[in-house]
Order: sequence, then structure tokens, then C-alpha cells
Amino acid sequence: MSVSSSSTTHRRFVLARRPQGLPVAADFEVVESGVPAARTGDVVVRHTHLGLAPAARIRMSEDVQGYLPPFAIGDTIYGAAVGLVVDSRHDDFTVGDVVVSINGGWQTHDVSDGSNLRPVDLDLAPAPTWLGVMGVSGLTAYVGLTDIGQVSAGDTVVVSAAAGAVGSTAVQFARAMGCRVVGVAGGPDKARHVLEVLGADACVDYKAPDLPRQLAAACPDGVDVYFDNVGGMVRDAVWPLMRQYGRIVVCGQIAEYNRADAVGSGPDWYPLLTRSLVVRGFLASRYQHRYDDFRARAAQWLQDGSVLPTEHVVPGFESTPEAFIGMLQGRNVGKTVVAI
Amino acid sequence: MSVSSSSTTHRRFVLARRPQGLPVAADFEVVESGVPAARTGDVVVRHTHLGLAPAARIRMSEDVQGYLPPFAIGDTIYGAAVGLVVDSRHDDFTVGDVVVSINGGWQTHDVSDGSNLRPVDLDLAPAPTWLGVMGVSGLTAYVGLTDIGQVSAGDTVVVSAAAGAVGSTAVQFARAMGCRVVGVAGGPDKARHVLEVLGADACVDYKAPDLPRQLAAACPDGVDVYFDNVGGMVRDAVWPLMRQYGRIVVCGQIAEYNRADAVGSGPDWYPLLTRSLVVRGFLASRYQHRYDDFRARAAQWLQDGSVLPTEHVVPGFESTPEAFIGMLQGRNVGKTVVAI
Repeated sequence: MSVSSSSTTHRRFVLARRPQGLPVAADFEVVESGVPAARTGDVVVRHTHLGLAPAARIRMSEDVQGYLPPFAIGDTIYGAAVGLVVDSRHDDFTVGDVVVSINGGWQTHDVSDGSNLRPVDLDLAPAPTWLGVMGVSGLTAYVGLTDIGQVSAGDTVVVSAAAGAVGSTAVQFARAMGCRVVGVAGGPDKARHVLEVLGADACVDYKAPDLPRQLAAACPDGVDVYFDNVGGMVRDAVWPLMRQYGRIVVCGQIAEYNRADAVGSGPDWYPLLTRSLVVRGFLASRYQHRYDDFRARAAQWLQDGSVLPTEHVVPGFESTPEAFIGMLQGRNVGKTVVAI
Repeated sequence: MSVSSSSTTHRRFVLARRPQGLPVAADFEVVESGVPAARTGDVVVRHTHLGLAPAARIRMSEDVQGYLPPFAIGDTIYGAAVGLVVDSRHDDFTVGDVVVSINGGWQTHDVSDGSNLRPVDLDLAPAPTWLGVMGVSGLTAYVGLTDIGQVSAGDTVVVSAAAGAVGSTAVQFARAMGCRVVGVAGGPDKARHVLEVLGADACVDYKAPDLPRQLAAACPDGVDVYFDNVGGMVRDAVWPLMRQYGRIVVCGQIAEYNRADAVGSGPDWYPLLTRSLVVRGFLASRYQHRYDDFRARAAQWLQDGSVLPTEHVVPGFESTPEAFIGMLQGRNVGKTVVAI
């Protein structure tokens, strides 16, 4: 990476209109301006990689109560990014530093006060991995399994969207923690990937007609922890398999994001009482205090080979909306990263 | 209470057949035998009061996975009881001691190894109260608010079945902890009782046609903790009002116990994610380690008048099934206790 390749044009994708259901390219537009210079206390970062996250879809809708505020029309779309410091008037950052930002956004450059930036060690993992296994996706999987799911070695852990960004990381982290891991993924190719590449003990294709039966067969002793990235029919198939004191980690509800109707229904609450279940939603952004512990363990797992990076890199800044839409449709495996 | 009034007949109510929906009297029958003498290590207790609990209904059905095992046909119905020690070959108990048993059962006498017995101090509270506010109902309300609901002073706490055994205690305990308490109860008489006797800040009648609107009006800042004793439509009305980081304590699902169809549906899971909610079921019997703390605080609240006993005493051992059925129908307020 060379600092001199920095363009003088700042391009960013903004929300042009609120998507109805699945977003389309025309919901986004590029806005161009000059790259600003750093003012006192500021850092200018030229992004090299953008990390796409399904949860950004939530904020493209009108107000979702209790969640992060919705984007206004004209706002830059939120997302993590890796980049090079190209200008700095901040004591902690020097031109040439590589950093990861939790909210750099879908843009070529970002001006930051430094509070959202963390140093990146490219000897430990390549840039895209700092958006995937070593990034927000990894932190989400880690906090979901530990703080929320309270997994122990020997637990049966079911992970939905197991080929997705967080799912593929959760599958591998849970295995590294000594759990028996059953993935759920869409289609035979993804199921094979989860089984053979990510090393799950079993993987069920949710598009198969007999999902509940297949899942029950894959979990003969029931389920201790369900890491739910999707909601919907997969959740409904796991629900009756939950063991006493089971924990359900509500990490994503991707089956619900693009729904036209506002209100669906969830499963019967009776097992919550009779099996003393816990169902818990969380936002990884509230668990930054767990970052150091996460980073140390994830780095160790990457180094000893028990966890593989799983980023899917798409070239070209202009392909960002298309890559995002494809991700919501489940076209790829792993974390979707745009290389600028 | 006089030991000499002890009968020589041991009578117990057993499950004659599994209820279909709401139990009827013929689902139970009385079995008589002689009162046994204590063997080494045993205590014979003559029950003076039986505490009735809706959860016993769960165990009258066929196997409910993950829950306490179902009663067999012919089993004595489970329940807490207060009684007098009438025979003892156990070092810790003397004839004349008053004790409370978490599982004395629907019977006139019980033979125990002492492990389920705790001493009762009648100077602190009368016998029925050791089955209500100072008993399992109180422990359930206390653990539900503290360990499960994590209430803090200032929280808005909604309690359903607020005139019921656990509900009427939860309303009072939550107030004693400095919360703003909104009860939900069935009918204007119960709602008035919750408001005027139990001291809730507001109470909504769930039989009113506009429950969701009334509840929203009673909780203008939303709900931090929902103490759910009922499930069903009350839960569905509270759900959209939950605030970010809200906690839902699943203590009972009385609306579901007598359902003919096995599977209903719960609310949409989307708010679990977007508001970082926690929904947690629990069994108070797993929280015996909290008993001493509970007992000390409940006794203090009773003594300083901030909590009132709310037991509803029904005379006559033979009236036990009818009192149980009436409780499931919500006929009374407070804890239903049978005086033998």
C-alpha cells in the first residue's frame, strides 16, 4: 500500500431513498467532494477496505425504536473500514499508520478525531481480516458466545447463517472453545463449506424441505446454545430442541430485515418457562470493553490455525451497493469486504 | 395449634386422571391410610395449611420437556405446606415445632427426612404468610425481580396477574425497591385492589377492550422490566412498550396452562435485537441459595408495613381441588391457602 496513490477526490455512498424490502442500486448514490485537510486533533484516513454488515439495513428504514438512529436521506452509510492515515494533526497517529475504524462508512476517506480508530497489525492478519474474524464480525461472534451465550466446552451450539460473516466466525470460535457445533446454511454448497472448511460437526441446509427433522437428527442431545443470525423458520426449527437452561443469542434477524409487513410472530413462550431458557439480544458495539480479550484469543486461534479467515473480497468502491445487496441475498460466504 | 388434635388418618389428594384443559374435581381423589410413625432420621409433620400454586397444573399433563417430571396417576399433588412436627426421630426437629415444607403436598401429613423443612417463626408472620409473601411465592417474586429482572429504583415494572399470589407480592416488592409499578389484572375489582391495597402506581384491566392503548398510557416512558405471570395477550400488549435493555421475567404462563392446542405463538423477535432485550424463564426452586437474603428483606418489609400479607385462606382439606380450580380461573386475589 502506498500513501502516494491517494486520490484527491472524496467519494461516499449516501442513502438516496429508503429501500422497500430488499434494497436496489438506486437507493444509494455517490457524492463527491475534495478530500479535506486535517484540522487540530483530526486524522484523515484513506480507506483501503470497507466491511459490509447486514445490520446497516436496519438503519435504512424509518425509526426502529430502541436501535441506533436511522440514517437520514443523504447520510453516508455506516460501516467498518480499514485504511491508511494520510494526514494527521493527532498525537497518536502518524501518516502511514494502518487503522481500522468501527464506523468509517461507505466512503473513500474519513476525517476522524481518532476515537473510533484502532491500530492494525498486518503481520498478525491481512487487512480484510481486520474487518472479519479480527474485526467487528469477530467481536460479535466472540461476545455472543461468551458474554451472551455463556458457552462451555461440550455444549451443543447451533449457528444459523453459518456461512455468513458472523456465523462463519461463530462456528469456528465455538469449535475452538470445545463445543459441538451444528451449522445451518442455505443450499448444499454452503452447507459443505461450513462442514469441510469451517469444520462444523454437522451442517443442515435450511432450504431442504425437512429442516426440523434434519436439525433434530443433527442434535440428538438437544441444543444448549442457539446463535441466531436469522430469526424466522430456522429459529422456529431450533426452538423445540432447546435443552433446559438453554441460551439463545439473538445476534441478527436477517430473515426479518427486508420484510414488507412490520410484525411477524415468534415461537410459543411456554418452553421459556418450563425449560428456564434465556433469549438475549445484543449489540457488539456495547462490548468494546471486551475487545482486548477478544483480540488476544482470536489472534492466537488464527496463528495456531484453529480459525481461518473467511473474508470474501469484492474489488472496486463503485461495487459497494451491489455487494451489499448480494450479501443480503446470501450470495457469498464469509465477511463481504470491498477493496477500494 | 394443639398437637393433640392430630388425626390418626392420613389423607392425601392424588391425581386420578390427567386434566383436559381446566381441571375438574373428578381429576383428583382422596386416598386414606394410617399416619405412619417416624423411623430413624424421619420427621412426621401434620399439615395445618397447604399453599396452592398454578405451576402444579403443568405437572398434571404428560411429559413437559425440561420441566419437573409429570405426576404419575396416583401421585400426591405437589405443593408447599406449613405444619406441626408430631413425631420426630431427627436431631434438628422436636415435636411441636412449626415448619414450612416446599413440597409437603396436598395431604394432611407428610413424612420427611427434614431436608425440605425450614423453621417458621410465627412471631414474624402468621402461618399462611409462610406460604405467601414469606414463602415460595415471595421467593419467586424476589428472585424474579432481583436475579432475573435486575430491577433498579426508578425502573418502570409491569406485573401481570398482579392480583395473584406471585403478582401481588411482586407488585409490593417492586414498590419497596423504589420502582414505578404498573399492574395488569382481570376486572375492575382486582384492578382497584392492586391500586388501592397493594399500592401500584397504576393498574390496567386486561379485560378492557383497549388493553394496548391503556397500557401504553400507563407507561408513558416505556417498560424496563416486565414480570410475566400469564403470557398470551397481556405479554403481546407489553412487548412493543419494552425499552432498550429491557428485561422480561418469565415466571408463569397461566394463560397457556389449560390450552387444548399444544403450540401457540409469541411476539416478533425483531425488538429483541433492536432493543437488546433479555427474556428469561426461571424456577424459584433453583434459587434456594437466595432464601436467607429474601427472608431477611421480606421480614423487614412486613414489619415496617411496606408490604402486606395477601393470603386468601380457604377452610377445609376437602376443598383443596375446588380452591385450586378457582385459582386457575382467577377467582381470588393473593395466595390461595387451604387451612386444614
